[in-house]
Amino acid sequence: MKGVLFNQDSTEFFYTHTADQMSAEAVDAWVDSLADAGVGTLFSNTNAMRANYASRVWETDWHGYDPAGPDDQPVLKYLPADDIPGTRRRLDSAQRLADMGIDFHERAFARCRKRGIGCWASMRMNDLHDCHLQDSPLLSTFYKEHPEFRRVPYRFTGWPDRALDWAFPEVRDHYLKFVVEHLERWNLDGLELDWMRFGYHFAIGRELEGGAILADWIGQVRQECRRAAKRLGHPVKLGVRVPSTPETARNLGLDGAAWAKAGLIDLLVPTPFWATCEFSMPLATWRGLLEGTQCRLAGGLEIRYQPSPGANAIMVTPELAAGAAMAVLRGGADFVYLFNYFADMHLGGQWTKEQYDRTLRAMASLEALDRLPRRHAVTYRDVRAPGEPSDQPLPASGSILAFRLQTGPRPAGRTVEVLLEAGAPDTPAPELRVNSVLCPPPQQDGATFTYAVPEAALADEVHVVEASAAEGKPLTVVRVEFAIGEKTG
Amino acid sequence: MKGVLFNQDSTEFFYTHTADQMSAEAVDAWVDSLADAGVGTLFSNTNAMRANYASRVWETDWHGYDPAGPDDQPVLKYLPADDIPGTRRRLDSAQRLADMGIDFHERAFARCRKRGIGCWASMRMNDLHDCHLQDSPLLSTFYKEHPEFRRVPYRFTGWPDRALDWAFPEVRDHYLKFVVEHLERWNLDGLELDWMRFGYHFAIGRELEGGAILADWIGQVRQECRRAAKRLGHPVKLGVRVPSTPETARNLGLDGAAWAKAGLIDLLVPTPFWATCEFSMPLATWRGLLEGTQCRLAGGLEIRYQPSPGANAIMVTPELAAGAAMAVLRGGADFVYLFNYFADMHLGGQWTKEQYDRTLRAMASLEALDRLPRRHAVTYRDVRAPGEPSDQPLPASGSILAFRLQTGPRPAGRTVEVLLEAGAPDTPAPELRVNSVLCPPPQQDGATFTYAVPEAALADEVHVVEASAAEGKPLTVVRVEFAIGEKTG
Repeated sequence: MKGVLFNQDSTEFFYTHTADQMSAEAVDAWVDSLADAGVGTLFSNTNAMRANYASRVWETDWHGYDPAGPDDQPVLKYLPADDIPGTRRRLDSAQRLADMGIDFHERAFARCRKRGIGCWASMRMNDLHDCHLQDSPLLSTFYKEHPEFRRVPYRFTGWPDRALDWAFPEVRDHYLKFVVEHLERWNLDGLELDWMRFGYHFAIGRELEGGAILADWIGQVRQECRRAAKRLGHPVKLGVRVPSTPETARNLGLDGAAWAKAGLIDLLVPTPFWATCEFSMPLATWRGLLEGTQCRLAGGLEIRYQPSPGANAIMVTPELAAGAAMAVLRGGADFVYLFNYFADMHLGGQWTKEQYDRTLRAMASLEALDRLPRRHAVTYRDVRAPGEPSDQPLPASGSILAFRLQTGPRPAGRTVEVLLEAGAPDTPAPELRVNSVLCPPPQQDGATFTYAVPEAALADEVHVVEASAAEGKPLTVVRVEFAIGEKTG
Repeated sequence: MKGVLFNQDSTEFFYTHTADQMSAEAVDAWVDSLADAGVGTLFSNTNAMRANYASRVWETDWHGYDPAGPDDQPVLKYLPADDIPGTRRRLDSAQRLADMGIDFHERAFARCRKRGIGCWASMRMNDLHDCHLQDSPLLSTFYKEHPEFRRVPYRFTGWPDRALDWAFPEVRDHYLKFVVEHLERWNLDGLELDWMRFGYHFAIGRELEGGAILADWIGQVRQECRRAAKRLGHPVKLGVRVPSTPETARNLGLDGAAWAKAGLIDLLVPTPFWATCEFSMPLATWRGLLEGTQCRLAGGLEIRYQPSPGANAIMVTPELAAGAAMAVLRGGADFVYLFNYFADMHLGGQWTKEQYDRTLRAMASLEALDRLPRRHAVTYRDVRAPGEPSDQPLPASGSILAFRLQTGPRPAGRTVEVLLEAGAPDTPAPELRVNSVLCPPPQQDGATFTYAVPEAALADEVHVVEASAAEGKPLTVVRVEFAIGEKTG
């Protein structure tokens, strides 16, 4: 593996192309755009609850959908009206391509090989989109017919309550046959088990027992990978996506470190779920846990930036993406792994193509990345195991507030600024220290303060920002960012 | 090593004995009481800022103290009046024993060998007792004369702000000469560097750089241990006490896992500082990090139990101590390590001698411990690195609250209860689930509810408790305990 690892949900392809635009060449062009952006390995997502290709063992996304039928046909009528046109386009396109005899992934993987890109299939292990609806093209018959397999049957506080409980052998068998098809159908460099869609796979309090079940099940998958490798004459690796901290991963039955130590996996990707990119994941601890194994480590980046739950969220800017990626590489990961970084669907109109290509290409190495301007932010973990206490840093209130940011190599000789947003508009400028060094008074724009950080404060890997309330008023901080200018000279 | 590891501050001995009671036999009797309680290895603490024995390289505790002088002599006059009699007794006794030509530790270690107990010296690396005072017998001249060595010179929010900054070579040299004396003076099985008195050793934001400094310094200590081993003809091991989680330890410059991987240490003791025993430390993660090293792992127990900062604190009961110890052993630690478990000074009058001996002896093995009744509790971490967010589970408020407790082996066939204390006296009984299983309605005593836990809920290692507010009222919970009755039959 080399370069940035890139998870692509073919949903984007089918959303952004009409059925009439379907062709083998369109798939090639789509892979080419990733190759041009410097993607090193494609992780092509093959499913939510259903297959997005013409699977022989799972229902397809367009199962039960009538392209000529009305908007109130059974699989569409529970959707919000606004979602129906896009959904129809996606289903029409996916079905058309399949009807043309083209297997999206097979074609994409072949193109990847031509372009020198690694090709992995990425399988979501418990996708829950639309699970609150009575019906939707995203809900499988298996799911709808087996409410008794849901992990939290006694309440509904959110989609994860309705996840399938992997303690049921029927659930494991359902996925295993899909795994086998993947490995028999395609010429893969690797298969990824994406446990982070949606991260919760066992009844509350039964996750450690679940972890033992999963270790056994992944052992079976490992065997299937070996069988495929024999057929193909090259290794077929196995990877997993798991929660961002080792404790939470283990507490959810997703003990990636243990799987690596048992020789079951070749790639481990700690990652947040979705709500926000996590800028300070404990990669160094993961690295320590993997020592002595052959398993490679990647840090997963999501596309949103949200300082705290409920706060305003934006799509990350190129600078924020570079900051998050830098923390991953400086923390000791081998790779940056991108999820939901769709050039059109999510970033279209916000990043230029030049920015997109430049940023993704730089993520291949710490040295390249270090040349770009970057921005680190204080965010939070959006996946915790049941009963784990909240540990979100923002909003924070008090007279002295401290924040910790992973910031990559010491930004010597560069423009460095700290941005602090207060919770109240009339907040007097807080006094700021970075790594104990007092910063000059800030520029103010409403409740947002920008401080120049003195060279003497700069350090490798981490900066600690301390904000002290001015004039004895209690201080509330809702956003903290650490911005490093472009490397010059 | 075998049995429970026991840190004893000789302060207790000098507090609880008068000068006239000082004798070699009194020291022997004191060791015998530990041996009788089943202590496997004694960690005899030798210092705060000063030596509690007649050191030739550091001041003694009684330096500058005049036994015949008044209570307003310089080293006493800043103490609270209530503390003066006890302090004088301690100083009088320590000085008397030294004047009799008896080295407390030498005598204790000799008795340990006779009784088959391991003997380690434990050195506090940055003790701060009384550092807010202008003078005290606890403050060294070195400390008083060098305010420029303090780690946070620009504020005072608590003792740790005034800790010595180990980035100064003078500080490291000051401690190194004390280390060398230890190793040359006594016949030790091991030397412990107690970084958890008080846990903060570097300027804010400079802890990772500090970690590199400490790794180097500990390497020097390791060399001194080897030299002593050569002289003595047996190994002299090296141990450390560090914060309870790997991340915080590393973020404070106390990267115990890295030291173990570098072959620098033989014993690692993750532990809270003091405010509360921590009942759910991530021992399994520590175990994973130590894999492939020769380093042994112990979990540190403190003597207080406090559900949340500022809440009422009590000394742990035998059941609570057994619960905390069980979590440590079930989490994969080799040993339980006790700090502040002073039979007289802290537990006198609360634990019977029989309870003390029975509990400590049982801590030698998971099997023995599992026969005792035990109580697990939700508490919090009292040491976090600057900028790390708070993650205390209590108090908790909301409509559904979940708590996670490490509970040892599955308590099959035993009486199991959950205690829940609400924050408001008029709280209607919450509905409780343990590991998803609904419990029968509770017994109520004021705001405290006790639930019987059904056998079907029981699991190995962890239980998750979910409390749901009744009658739509918001629920606040301030205390959660999980009690397991004695093993019968």
